[in-house]
Amino acid sequence: MTAQIAPFYAIEISRLAHALKAQGRSIIHMEFGQPSTGAPKAAIATAHEVLDSDGMGYWESTPLKARLAQYYHDSYGVEVAPDRFILTCGASPALVLALTSSFAPGARVALARPGYVAYRNTLKALHMEAVEIPCGPEVRFQLTAQALAALDPAPDGVIIASPANPTGTIIAPDELRAIAEVCRARNIRIVSDEIYHGLSYGEPARSMLEYAPDALIVSSFSKYFSMVGWRLGWLLVPEAHLETARAYVGNLFLTAPSLSQHAGLVALDSRDELEGHVETYRRNRQILLEALPELGLTTIAPPDGAFYVYADIGHLTGDSLQFCKDLLNETGVATAPGIDFDPVEGRHFIRFSFAVSTREIEEAVKRMIPWFKAKG
Amino acid sequence: MTAQIAPFYAIEISRLAHALKAQGRSIIHMEFGQPSTGAPKAAIATAHEVLDSDGMGYWESTPLKARLAQYYHDSYGVEVAPDRFILTCGASPALVLALTSSFAPGARVALARPGYVAYRNTLKALHMEAVEIPCGPEVRFQLTAQALAALDPAPDGVIIASPANPTGTIIAPDELRAIAEVCRARNIRIVSDEIYHGLSYGEPARSMLEYAPDALIVSSFSKYFSMVGWRLGWLLVPEAHLETARAYVGNLFLTAPSLSQHAGLVALDSRDELEGHVETYRRNRQILLEALPELGLTTIAPPDGAFYVYADIGHLTGDSLQFCKDLLNETGVATAPGIDFDPVEGRHFIRFSFAVSTREIEEAVKRMIPWFKAKG
Repeated sequence: MTAQIAPFYAIEISRLAHALKAQGRSIIHMEFGQPSTGAPKAAIATAHEVLDSDGMGYWESTPLKARLAQYYHDSYGVEVAPDRFILTCGASPALVLALTSSFAPGARVALARPGYVAYRNTLKALHMEAVEIPCGPEVRFQLTAQALAALDPAPDGVIIASPANPTGTIIAPDELRAIAEVCRARNIRIVSDEIYHGLSYGEPARSMLEYAPDALIVSSFSKYFSMVGWRLGWLLVPEAHLETARAYVGNLFLTAPSLSQHAGLVALDSRDELEGHVETYRRNRQILLEALPELGLTTIAPPDGAFYVYADIGHLTGDSLQFCKDLLNETGVATAPGIDFDPVEGRHFIRFSFAVSTREIEEAVKRMIPWFKAKG
Repeated sequence: MTAQIAPFYAIEISRLAHALKAQGRSIIHMEFGQPSTGAPKAAIATAHEVLDSDGMGYWESTPLKARLAQYYHDSYGVEVAPDRFILTCGASPALVLALTSSFAPGARVALARPGYVAYRNTLKALHMEAVEIPCGPEVRFQLTAQALAALDPAPDGVIIASPANPTGTIIAPDELRAIAEVCRARNIRIVSDEIYHGLSYGEPARSMLEYAPDALIVSSFSKYFSMVGWRLGWLLVPEAHLETARAYVGNLFLTAPSLSQHAGLVALDSRDELEGHVETYRRNRQILLEALPELGLTTIAPPDGAFYVYADIGHLTGDSLQFCKDLLNETGVATAPGIDFDPVEGRHFIRFSFAVSTREIEEAVKRMIPWFKAKG
């Protein structure tokens, strides 16, 4: 039998938001982790040039792989051979590639709960077992080396996410190192989703690669680089896994979009513009954090990075999906229900994305304060 | 254990071709099924406009789905609700989506041998069993209703490809109908890869949808629409499978490239330009077919469609990979070895792609005639 997987409820909220918008309502989209800014200007200029000069066939950009290797050197101080990058149509197929090429059906893969809904569902679709580790406020909603060491039997793999979705929490360097050690000792293969790297508001996130050179790293141009709809991501694999990963990508996916590869190369050199977006998120985050007490929301995950606040709404509801629908219907503010990220505790959590404009976050707060006060 | 899958040998040939080119050699690329023409002019113009006006987020184009429904009405006389189209990053993820959402590990899926290498390998990667049906010249290298009816036990599914890769052969309408009837009677789910539709040189290929309304149809903008590197394809699913397929795509892949969706919509209205490409292929095909006897190649698959000629070279070699390497080294003509498509008989077959310019096909023929004569 094929696996039955749950829908992504944020999509349901988004559909409702678009329907309300079509009726003339003013909607603020905080339901998806999607920058409202577009690609860097220089990347768009390059795309214009390429459109007129390149036939755009099956293509893997050697310059992009070399530039990514440089990026890892500059960001994390690690040396990576350029051919270890497998370019993909976003982080999603990179994760599918990492899982199918590393694990067989029945494999047990550990991950934090709450976590990105697609981890659990993709494992399920591939008939692997998601070993969910409940991670509450006491561990900053993140996996720990201790929790991994305590799993009996040891899982075959683990998915690490730092900064995490939906919480934005970052795993501290010492803990990353400890996790790497447990995985080495227990022979647990690490898949590290680093898609939110570049988006942090205190210490920058470290790459798992610094501590576990044989980890598989998933990332993309969709978040920090603000190129969501360009569908460009990568899987960075250890040398020993390269031949397998290349055979898998050649059969399952072929190449990434040509234009996006050209534009992505330029985006890697557009740091000033991109850091401007991070400053906007930092401002938005501050506005949201300052408003939360007025909303009566006092238990939140520490939003170290990404562009999310994950807040406990247990004093207001036990049905986060209905709560998000009501909030949308009555204020026009679209958010994501916790059940997308945690089928157990998520019914009393909500995720706000602050990857919108500052004007929008201000307006959202203005609308939410009286609504939450009336609820509370 | 994860599945070990074979590399795509045409990629090895292509790498060698590029290396020779870098040494200054004149190379003619006939190893991949890749149009040398670019996207339609109007599609490129639209892409320029969109680059300057659209933020390009996660997006599914409703107009594109509606236009595709119209295309199925116009091409095949079938009525399809627009929301039955799932847009993907090319046909490859559409196939992964079709297989994972339809079959579980261990499922038996029938397919023709020879056939597109990724069918066999993707099934293997997903731990499904590829039930290969040897299809020789006596059945035009294609699956038949009779062969499917004879399988014992009945397989869970079947992959149909018409026009096929590597042969270009088209399944006649009556046979398609008979296949649909066998599948209905034996409860075999049909996945029909129709990526080469629009490219035919006699009767146009019919869609399996005309005979089996509940078939899953895989297709893309990469071949007829000449938009390979744009990575845009679709999976057309029956109403009853829609909810499942949407849950799978939302978790495994998310959306297709935004720019490509805008451009694809315009490409669907660029028929004059695209039919011009088909005329080029028709001319190229004729030139190649007329040259084959001079090359001593007399046993070929009937090239009804696509842009391939699959020829028996058994009188010259039993090692098609080495043969293709020698041909490339000595003439600069890159081709694909039969072993990519048929691990058994493929060692004495070769695939020529004629999706090049007419000047190139003329030059390729000129170089190959003396070389084949010297071999023969």
